Amino acid sequence: MSAGWLAISGLGPGGGALVTPEVTDALAQATDVIGYIPYVARVAPRPGLTLHPSDNRVELDRATHALRLAAQGARVVVVSSGDPGVFAMAAAVFEALEAGPPAWGLLDIRVLPGITAMLAASARAGAPLGHDFCAINLSDNLKPWSLVERRIRLAAEADFAIAFYNPRSRARPDDLDRAFAVLRDACADRRPVLFARAVTTPEEVLRIVPLPDARGDMADMRTMVIVGSSRTRLIDRPGAPILYTPRSAP
Amino acid sequence: MSAGWLAISGLGPGGGALVTPEVTDALAQATDVIGYIPYVARVAPRPGLTLHPSDNRVELDRATHALRLAAQGARVVVVSSGDPGVFAMAAAVFEALEAGPPAWGLLDIRVLPGITAMLAASARAGAPLGHDFCAINLSDNLKPWSLVERRIRLAAEADFAIAFYNPRSRARPDDLDRAFAVLRDACADRRPVLFARAVTTPEEVLRIVPLPDARGDMADMRTMVIVGSSRTRLIDRPGAPILYTPRSAP
Repeated sequence: MSAGWLAISGLGPGGGALVTPEVTDALAQATDVIGYIPYVARVAPRPGLTLHPSDNRVELDRATHALRLAAQGARVVVVSSGDPGVFAMAAAVFEALEAGPPAWGLLDIRVLPGITAMLAASARAGAPLGHDFCAINLSDNLKPWSLVERRIRLAAEADFAIAFYNPRSRARPDDLDRAFAVLRDACADRRPVLFARAVTTPEEVLRIVPLPDARGDMADMRTMVIVGSSRTRLIDRPGAPILYTPRSAP
Repeated sequence: MSAGWLAISGLGPGGGALVTPEVTDALAQATDVIGYIPYVARVAPRPGLTLHPSDNRVELDRATHALRLAAQGARVVVVSSGDPGVFAMAAAVFEALEAGPPAWGLLDIRVLPGITAMLAASARAGAPLGHDFCAINLSDNLKPWSLVERRIRLAAEADFAIAFYNPRSRARPDDLDRAFAVLRDACADRRPVLFARAVTTPEEVLRIVPLPDARGDMADMRTMVIVGSSRTRLIDRPGAPILYTPRSAP
């Protein structure tokens, strides 16, 4: 039996043209693919490959399953959308590794990066992340809302552009409205806000509104929200406008 | 003559296995490739393709050149390493577009994302960006140092992991030491600092030291520096340790 390994891999935002050759190659060599149902659905079935789709919110179970299979000699790919290191499976696997048997420390584990959602959304709209920025997971499943709010205030004070991951879910319908309220209080200007839904897929929709008009119901679970800094600009032109943040700041 | 276009493209951190098929395809269709010398050197010459390597610090000239060629009907790829939207050529092209003739607003311009340095470095080390984080360009060519320092203090207060782009150059040998001094003052702990040099190339070197031991001369122009948050952990194990930030915060 060949030695097992574990490749925690990013599938990018959706389009096949954004999957790196490194990830394609790992999938071609894998015996097992593990991940959240819609991400595993992006992997083509083939003989010799077992697909293990699992439900949302079972990240640690999924990670433990992957480590156990690799320890048994399987060639395992854990798939995330975007990049596995940004609010995705890589940290969950390492949490499970720390909680597991010491022998797991000897496993061959690699993280294979992918195009994370904020980079894909930014590219489609222009370059809103062209100057200093931050990324905040808006979900308060794993941290208190008070910390989220504090980070938003400090990010606004630092004049970062802000990428909000997981801006909204059925269980948290109001968080994004609360985030916009904090931002309106801290910023009091008309900086542009990008709602980028299902980027690089056939369902892609981009929408840009000034901060005072931004509403939580403009996003859903498949939307990336990027709030500009005070210097982010819109270039009006036929077709879609270009949203970008200049490189310099005074 | 076919209609010209401009694709502002990211080549990823260095390894060919991290170039997206979308970028490979754009390069295959291009008539002209424009960029900083070492990035253009990563594009294979072929008949029908003109390479335009240019020196560092002429981003706006390069951007204007690219727009002018595309307006004349060329199929132009502007190359950056990493992602073009993160401290790279995309913002420069849009600045040049705004300053140029109105007709440039009609051009077919796309941004093709790439694996940016912090994602590649993070993947090689584990998952230090697994929780909220920020990215700061440490160069003060385009902004005052006082703003850099203010952002570092606010990022530490927010307890973000921090990715420092352009941490050091010959013209600014002391900036990274000054940044570490600000962080030591703001944090006063032994959080890990990752120096990831030339990631995914044969010259790759990773080094992790606690913040009190971090020194500017541990980085050069090819190094990505990632400073952990207060919760970033090291898993000791045979071979390389794993650096990661857990998903949750109290």
